[in-house]
Amino acid sequence: MHDLIIIGGGAAGLSAAVYALGRELDVVAIYEEFGKAGTQQQIKGQAGEEYLAGAEAVQLFERRVVAHADVTLHDRVVALTKSGGVFQVQTQHHGTQNATAVILATGASPLQLNVPGAKSLLNHGIGYSITTHAQLVAGKTVAVIGTTRRALRGVVELARTAAQIYLIAPDATGMTTPLARSLRRLPNVSVLAGYTVKEIAGTHSVEHVVVVRDGEESTLRVDAVFADFGLLPNSGIARQLARVDADGFILIDDKNATTTPGLFAAGDVTTAFGENILIAIGDGARAAVSAYEYILAHPSAQDAEPSD
Amino acid sequence: MHDLIIIGGGAAGLSAAVYALGRELDVVAIYEEFGKAGTQQQIKGQAGEEYLAGAEAVQLFERRVVAHADVTLHDRVVALTKSGGVFQVQTQHHGTQNATAVILATGASPLQLNVPGAKSLLNHGIGYSITTHAQLVAGKTVAVIGTTRRALRGVVELARTAAQIYLIAPDATGMTTPLARSLRRLPNVSVLAGYTVKEIAGTHSVEHVVVVRDGEESTLRVDAVFADFGLLPNSGIARQLARVDADGFILIDDKNATTTPGLFAAGDVTTAFGENILIAIGDGARAAVSAYEYILAHPSAQDAEPSD
Repeated sequence: MHDLIIIGGGAAGLSAAVYALGRELDVVAIYEEFGKAGTQQQIKGQAGEEYLAGAEAVQLFERRVVAHADVTLHDRVVALTKSGGVFQVQTQHHGTQNATAVILATGASPLQLNVPGAKSLLNHGIGYSITTHAQLVAGKTVAVIGTTRRALRGVVELARTAAQIYLIAPDATGMTTPLARSLRRLPNVSVLAGYTVKEIAGTHSVEHVVVVRDGEESTLRVDAVFADFGLLPNSGIARQLARVDADGFILIDDKNATTTPGLFAAGDVTTAFGENILIAIGDGARAAVSAYEYILAHPSAQDAEPSD
Repeated sequence: MHDLIIIGGGAAGLSAAVYALGRELDVVAIYEEFGKAGTQQQIKGQAGEEYLAGAEAVQLFERRVVAHADVTLHDRVVALTKSGGVFQVQTQHHGTQNATAVILATGASPLQLNVPGAKSLLNHGIGYSITTHAQLVAGKTVAVIGTTRRALRGVVELARTAAQIYLIAPDATGMTTPLARSLRRLPNVSVLAGYTVKEIAGTHSVEHVVVVRDGEESTLRVDAVFADFGLLPNSGIARQLARVDADGFILIDDKNATTTPGLFAAGDVTTAFGENILIAIGDGARAAVSAYEYILAHPSAQDAEPSD
């Protein structure tokens, strides 16, 4: 029976683990991959100052956590339940681990673009996080695919530095919000409403995007492509216990508590996701502070072994 | 005319600066002392795992920020005003700097204990932050002076690991809350209501505390003393612009915005203070994200020079 189980090895999870170690809690950090903080959204070798600083900090945390060999479990969590005031965390290879409190920091994954070229050019001009790369395409021509709020905010950000932006909006129904209307007024933004992407091509990195409307093809000369069809929170194991929003993000309060007492969440799996490695560090620590207070207030759970 | 001015060189301020550099903003970081994150509350050489990890991360940030020589200003801010949609930040030695947005990250200082021994034994067994040091006094005898909520929460934390805790409550009126009543039930906590501290003594570090009630002296044998009369937020320069709570902490929303548009705040100077270096890193970045969005939405302010 542990005090705390932390699920996830990204920035939020590692920050929570460092805090828990500082408080000498009996903690187990279960991770599939350590320090993968936002990697799926990074364009290799092209991250900005702030991502690099954050990633460096997270590596420090990782070294500190891994130094406590008994604290980490390289495994996959397949189920999470709570009974008798105790959480049961079922893993693939290490049986069921019990704890008084649990922190979920399992992140979110971008919905993938599925056209020829999208896989082979990933990290070679194709990215899934505009906010992480906006400053790297200064003076360049960029295509953004998608009309999520995240995509539109990304275009505003890009418009500051990029030479030309094509906003490819297959479904133009999202283009009536004030944000979308303000985009149309930006001189370096062209909205291609009703177009879909057929192919992305380039020798070593992205060189052009083939788009189609009403059966007619056009080729856009671009230096980079950002795809944004939304993020998919990795919240599956928590959905029995914690309330999620319509997109599956875990609802948390300002102390990172979910709707189940003793269950906390941090980082991009939550409704407070910031898609920012530094914010994830803070949120992980805040979740750990809250979990710690919960553990202090529930000493009885620490003594009672569940009958499983 | 800058995009952003960040005031304060602790964890929150440096994290905000790293984010701003990543976004290639025209930013100036004004600090009196860099990386002093919570130093006033640390007992030298005795910080816990999580503080050390956070401090190491903040040092990384400091190196990155200082590498941009044109970005830092070693100075003191004496006044902060806003007119014509532009902030004026008046410094002691570098005149007035103007910016579209400002982030305040000036921290908070603990109210000091003022009895013989309090200064000479500071960092030698006397500390001002229980939460930072709780795990270091495992098995020890500790005195806590004060009845703030922070002090009482600290006692709950200490009770987990310390052998014996004396809670010295000069003013016992704060001792009627549910939290205070639950303390009285802890077997290793003795509440000394109505006692005041006359002296703290020890050769190399704290050895005993002399307390007085109704003119009668008693000597307590202790290994450490924590004083908590509250924290004093360094919010003086902002009080003309931003609303503060009864104790002077700057009111912020969940995006770290103050009540003045364009003015953001992060870390221990705010009502959301966490007294935790990792949380301050996250809050600094969140304030910077909000400031960045504000700057994107107010491009006009960037062109208009104020007539000063």
